[in-house]
Amino acid sequence: MISTSVAKEIRSIVGEERFLTDPADLSTYAFDGYCMEFTPDAVVLPENTSEVSSILQIANREKINIVPRGAGTNLSGTSVARRGGLIMPLTRMDQILEIDRANRCAIVQPGVVNAELQKALEPFGLMYGPDPSSWYVSTIGGNISLNAAGPRALKYGSAREHLLGLEVVRANGEIMRIGSKTSKNAAGYDLPHLFCGAEGTLGIITEVTIRTIPLPEAKCTLQAVFATLDDACMTVSKIMDSGIVPSAMDLLDQILIDLIQGYGGVQFPQGASAFLLIEVDGHPFAIEDEAKKIKKICSANNAIDILVAQTPEENEVVWRARRSIGGVFSKVCKTMINEDATVPVANLSAIMKIVLKLRDKYKLKIGIMAHAGDGNLHPAIMTDAQNQEEMQRVDNFAKELYEETLKLGGSLSGEHGIGLAKKKFVPLQFCDAALKMMREIKGLLDPNNILNPGSYIDE
Amino acid sequence: MISTSVAKEIRSIVGEERFLTDPADLSTYAFDGYCMEFTPDAVVLPENTSEVSSILQIANREKINIVPRGAGTNLSGTSVARRGGLIMPLTRMDQILEIDRANRCAIVQPGVVNAELQKALEPFGLMYGPDPSSWYVSTIGGNISLNAAGPRALKYGSAREHLLGLEVVRANGEIMRIGSKTSKNAAGYDLPHLFCGAEGTLGIITEVTIRTIPLPEAKCTLQAVFATLDDACMTVSKIMDSGIVPSAMDLLDQILIDLIQGYGGVQFPQGASAFLLIEVDGHPFAIEDEAKKIKKICSANNAIDILVAQTPEENEVVWRARRSIGGVFSKVCKTMINEDATVPVANLSAIMKIVLKLRDKYKLKIGIMAHAGDGNLHPAIMTDAQNQEEMQRVDNFAKELYEETLKLGGSLSGEHGIGLAKKKFVPLQFCDAALKMMREIKGLLDPNNILNPGSYIDE
Repeated sequence: MISTSVAKEIRSIVGEERFLTDPADLSTYAFDGYCMEFTPDAVVLPENTSEVSSILQIANREKINIVPRGAGTNLSGTSVARRGGLIMPLTRMDQILEIDRANRCAIVQPGVVNAELQKALEPFGLMYGPDPSSWYVSTIGGNISLNAAGPRALKYGSAREHLLGLEVVRANGEIMRIGSKTSKNAAGYDLPHLFCGAEGTLGIITEVTIRTIPLPEAKCTLQAVFATLDDACMTVSKIMDSGIVPSAMDLLDQILIDLIQGYGGVQFPQGASAFLLIEVDGHPFAIEDEAKKIKKICSANNAIDILVAQTPEENEVVWRARRSIGGVFSKVCKTMINEDATVPVANLSAIMKIVLKLRDKYKLKIGIMAHAGDGNLHPAIMTDAQNQEEMQRVDNFAKELYEETLKLGGSLSGEHGIGLAKKKFVPLQFCDAALKMMREIKGLLDPNNILNPGSYIDE
Repeated sequence: MISTSVAKEIRSIVGEERFLTDPADLSTYAFDGYCMEFTPDAVVLPENTSEVSSILQIANREKINIVPRGAGTNLSGTSVARRGGLIMPLTRMDQILEIDRANRCAIVQPGVVNAELQKALEPFGLMYGPDPSSWYVSTIGGNISLNAAGPRALKYGSAREHLLGLEVVRANGEIMRIGSKTSKNAAGYDLPHLFCGAEGTLGIITEVTIRTIPLPEAKCTLQAVFATLDDACMTVSKIMDSGIVPSAMDLLDQILIDLIQGYGGVQFPQGASAFLLIEVDGHPFAIEDEAKKIKKICSANNAIDILVAQTPEENEVVWRARRSIGGVFSKVCKTMINEDATVPVANLSAIMKIVLKLRDKYKLKIGIMAHAGDGNLHPAIMTDAQNQEEMQRVDNFAKELYEETLKLGGSLSGEHGIGLAKKKFVPLQFCDAALKMMREIKGLLDPNNILNPGSYIDE
């Protein structure tokens, strides 16, 4: 609980209207994209770095928990107040401070929405690599904190690969500027990347300098349908083997195909058990040739239907099928839990088989989406968080899934992070020495454990 | 000094022949690619991780300094025993443990030479991005520790962007495995990157998992000669502006042109004041078109001579001119000090002008090489480390150069690191809070300050 005197002190920094304690307001911030709900004691909405610093100084002194938050779209429960305290949305710090075309970078506040940034970059002939499915709402600060990615990470990398510099406020309120605009930087410890993927447990990001990429001159998307999941996995493997680097290669299984059949005009042929959406981008001459080669690989691996989009409009239709997934779940289940098991891509087929086996074993309704070229699987569990018996099966499924993922040389997360969803599995992935070092670093940077406690690697 | 009993203990781990104390042996390890010489107390050559761990346990207990070392080619004095103690070359741990084509990665010991790795990857249709000029001798462990790069970082990034996982031995001897083979990984703090560019001050790298890239199908190199440095800089700027991402764009100034004129058959036209070497790689259709566009940009910016290599052999001739630089310095000066000032590329022309001004001001012989597309300048100071008066001018030049570099939003290093060469400038680049955090992290991971002390951020 936050004492009246402390609440007064914080109000004196941000004003009445940006310190929320009304139950209706608090309930808005009680959940995120994961399925667990915790009502915070209050919500504080800073508008600048100095306010963030002042609030942290108080919180650190009073040992009040602070959970930084972007749009709250994360799927791992990383932006809820697990142990109470303050939720701190950075959504009011939403200015694009600079787009520097000549240096192919941009400086933004953490609350800038990914899609808004992409839109602002476009007239400069630039784009920001990470394209999470949540991009129409999720923020750059959240993207960096979760090391978010998306389909085109296959070619362009995750948030980590696009991070040049940060302004961060430490738990004690100290403001720190790290990194630079330079594309190469070999001076000093790599502090910016320590905060990337740290899920708000080490400091609060108040400004981001990102690398941007020249917009590709052209794109071409192929849609290939297969009668078996195996054929689709083999196709992925052969495309990776060809030396072509697609800008996306997403896979949907039969359950998802059935779900989106007809949705928004999407039509799959009879007998479709797996769907691959493959995009190449770059020089128009190159992608024309690459698309031909990919089409040939799909045919050779028993694709039953292949569509090559010829225009930007046709590209859009193909992507609509892929993007419509998010919208359909709410119609078929109360709760959707999206796993994020990631394996070296050569083990894609092996992990697919394991998911299918576990789906049967635990009698769950699960559709599989995968950023297939990255070995990044998103089994979408259609469930009801109120049904305790079913949720126990979901838990058992997840435990076995991640055990098998790690046996295959994988990771608990490719892009959704750890949060509350996977913190119990963390000791499975890391050796004792690594876990110890992570805890030491957390203890050093946040000795009072006020930043997002009870989550991530916290016991 | 190392006591007889401790020496005996270390010998019992590695044997007589891998614990060197003979003055002739020690002098071999007294210097690196920088100009400062410090004779170590001994040299120990471990052959496996377990030996590294045992030695570190002793060193940590006895507070004996340990300086890890690859091939010692670094240009920043980062692998000499500034405060005495043991030099630990990892050169005997030189096995390529795995090339995993399907997962586009490789696992290597730290002592593997960059060029050996590239050669081994080639039959698998892969390459490792970083291509420092030292690649024929420098090691992957050294490359990671210095966050090394090279010409093609412009397209592919530095060592940082190619690092997937590490095995590291901490100062206390604990062995830690961090990262994975997966191309995406959003689980836990980004520990691997904390050790990348840390110059051996936080731990000793004993195994590296690197990302590899499909070998480009084709390459094309252009050589453009200009009558003024300004024209060359403007060309760089226009190429960057075109949206083309060259795989290299290196610049040589008139002093270097004059030095390599005629060397190995290289011929520049009369009146050449600046030389640009531009490489594009990728799909043959794309690079043919890109080369044409680049040629046009060079012409439009007053190139007085443009050569487009048509075959791999012609490519090789063009690169020979660029690579021959390393060889010519030994003929014209006793000591060559290679600076590494890096600015956002839009400030390339500004920093060039500053170098020229400071060259005159301090009456030094300096040739400028630049990875121009990255804003990464290497003013090569041709001097004599024995001449104290001249070295004072070199120092003054460097101080002013880095002050101006930082004013232009740059960094003390693009790829050579900090070491002894630039540790005095570190407080110029970092705010107090960042410097404090770096020192706290160093104190946490190496409380007895035994790892490469007196270098980097150590006072």
